[in-house]
Amino acid sequence: MLSKLLTPKAQKMESSLVRELLHYSQQPDILSLAGGLPDEKYMPSYPAIEALEVSQQYGPSEGEGRLRHQIAEIVKERGVAVEDNQVLVTNGSQQALDLVSRIVLDENSIILTEQPTYLAAIQVFELQGAQIKDVRSDEFGLVPDALRRAIEEYQPKAVYLIPNFQNPAGHCYSKRRRVEIAALLDEKGVLLIEDDPYFDLCYEDVDRTPITHYLETAPWVYMGSFSKVLWPGMRTGYVVSCEALVPYLVKIKQAADLHTNRLGQLMISEYLVSGAYPEHIKKLRRVYAQKRDAMARAIDVNLSGLVSYSLPAGGMFFWVKLPSGVFSDRVLRQALERKVLVLPGLPFFANASELSDGYLRLSFARVSEEDVSNAISILADVIKEIMDESL
Amino acid sequence: MLSKLLTPKAQKMESSLVRELLHYSQQPDILSLAGGLPDEKYMPSYPAIEALEVSQQYGPSEGEGRLRHQIAEIVKERGVAVEDNQVLVTNGSQQALDLVSRIVLDENSIILTEQPTYLAAIQVFELQGAQIKDVRSDEFGLVPDALRRAIEEYQPKAVYLIPNFQNPAGHCYSKRRRVEIAALLDEKGVLLIEDDPYFDLCYEDVDRTPITHYLETAPWVYMGSFSKVLWPGMRTGYVVSCEALVPYLVKIKQAADLHTNRLGQLMISEYLVSGAYPEHIKKLRRVYAQKRDAMARAIDVNLSGLVSYSLPAGGMFFWVKLPSGVFSDRVLRQALERKVLVLPGLPFFANASELSDGYLRLSFARVSEEDVSNAISILADVIKEIMDESL
Repeated sequence: MLSKLLTPKAQKMESSLVRELLHYSQQPDILSLAGGLPDEKYMPSYPAIEALEVSQQYGPSEGEGRLRHQIAEIVKERGVAVEDNQVLVTNGSQQALDLVSRIVLDENSIILTEQPTYLAAIQVFELQGAQIKDVRSDEFGLVPDALRRAIEEYQPKAVYLIPNFQNPAGHCYSKRRRVEIAALLDEKGVLLIEDDPYFDLCYEDVDRTPITHYLETAPWVYMGSFSKVLWPGMRTGYVVSCEALVPYLVKIKQAADLHTNRLGQLMISEYLVSGAYPEHIKKLRRVYAQKRDAMARAIDVNLSGLVSYSLPAGGMFFWVKLPSGVFSDRVLRQALERKVLVLPGLPFFANASELSDGYLRLSFARVSEEDVSNAISILADVIKEIMDESL
Repeated sequence: MLSKLLTPKAQKMESSLVRELLHYSQQPDILSLAGGLPDEKYMPSYPAIEALEVSQQYGPSEGEGRLRHQIAEIVKERGVAVEDNQVLVTNGSQQALDLVSRIVLDENSIILTEQPTYLAAIQVFELQGAQIKDVRSDEFGLVPDALRRAIEEYQPKAVYLIPNFQNPAGHCYSKRRRVEIAALLDEKGVLLIEDDPYFDLCYEDVDRTPITHYLETAPWVYMGSFSKVLWPGMRTGYVVSCEALVPYLVKIKQAADLHTNRLGQLMISEYLVSGAYPEHIKKLRRVYAQKRDAMARAIDVNLSGLVSYSLPAGGMFFWVKLPSGVFSDRVLRQALERKVLVLPGLPFFANASELSDGYLRLSFARVSEEDVSNAISILADVIKEIMDESL
């Protein structure tokens, strides 16, 4: 019955491993390093809003005027110069990604991504029937020569990049790479889809200027979110775009759900007005940097010489390369038996190879220093056992 | 540039006339009969929620457990027997419609609708590339013989129906039609997409049992909304579906925006728990019935013998047939010059003909009795002038 009822693309939608795993993470005795959830301990209280009633009626598809202005100011400060009318408020940046994909990608499209890349982006691009080609990345970001070859070979519709503290690999592009990639996209006229949810979660003095800033002629969209720094349950993010794309994004937003929840928009707007935001971000940086360092220590103590990683300068994740011959799926299953939940690297590869199965993504954002130490110690035992068995 | 950048479907997305018109309706001196907005005067205050913090973190894609249970109870009472796990909370029923379309329709699909039908449904179906075939409806609903012929001729993927107080035509299906259509869909195995946002806005003693209730074997989805009876700005609606479709709806929801705003879900859930809902609905019925009657009187006084309509037993709209030779677009423009905004019938026809341009949709929900009387009187002047000129 389903094969007659569903579209071929819908039939191919994969049951997300992450979704499945997140069910485990809700069990109270599980130590989870798997999700991308911020720590609720550091979420500020909701602000009191005086004129709540204004949020009850239908609102504009583009989003609340005051919040759009605030978002324009935020991205301008990052180097993306926009007018308020180029801002579309979305249900988190996940919806921004979905809306952009729906107007740009179809079964005749190819999109280039980093390797690995954000798994829900893979899901969304594939849902449109697009083909994903991943381009080699190193610790400085996407490799420009590889990008040039890929553009020339595939004539892609767009390039999807997460230059700041990438999910999952954690890398932050060097300034030089940013400039080179922008020049290349200008030269080729390829759309840049820049995803920047972790901009504010920065723990080192690194350049975070969006690649969009350096573009001169190429079309672009730039996406951000309040989910990682305020309240993800509000589902409030945004996409700003070059003028030409604005009317199409508004139309697809309208078809998708008319507009984003107004109460959430007003609460975020009110919180931004209150002036508490800069101090809040400072605090988040301090506590998350401590958590990151605790995880680095735990890995160094327990797994030194066995796994490798680069210390992420921001964001929420360690991208850990397992010893050769140790596969992430097995680590996941055996760690879960001991109540530690990790995320295997495999679903972050659009085109999996043998090598793709040798990584774990470990989130430090939501666990205490003590729990991280326990979890990594258990993980080390599991990895060592697997290595012993395969000798 | 855009022709290279956008998909062919995105390029074809039409700028919605309704969107354009709603800009006018925000001008304070405009008397608007155009939108589908409920009257904010009768929206209850938000309930106080004790444990607000629970809504800050990411939540389940399916929706909040308590609200899903409440929705299951609501639709059971209407005659649609479901378990909680068959309920998906969405950003209004607009998103429900979009999600269902995305898993069922593509460019190889045909979908059957009423004639006229909800304009945003047309937008969503066309966005999927589906072909819409409209089936003849009369005041009792879709005509079963015409439906049978259309199913046999077009082999459609689905039939989209709004049996209760349809937007725009206002009709309410007779019980006999509901039973006949259900039997036909069972016989042919065609998916029913039943949209029921106006169920509670009922002003007469009519049968409102969902057609879904009468189905035995055909696949189905049933959509509802809190937007017409509580707070549309919350964007909280739902789709319940037959078991087979549940996992696909959850997966597409996850790709679309992870989940619906939790604060809105909790507020609606809390309001339902408070016990105030039945009294609130009674009040809405009373005030909207008065508004409906005021509009009927104003039309009878000012436009008797010129236009025709059936008194809607529920919902928000009069569907008014203009005198022959008077076209809705001209009425719209000339009325707008006199600060009265109406919605032309044309965009409610998936396949427009000469006849489609002879209707107006007039909403009585948000205007006072005095304003409705003034607006209809101006509208009558405009219609008479157009008739005089064309003599």
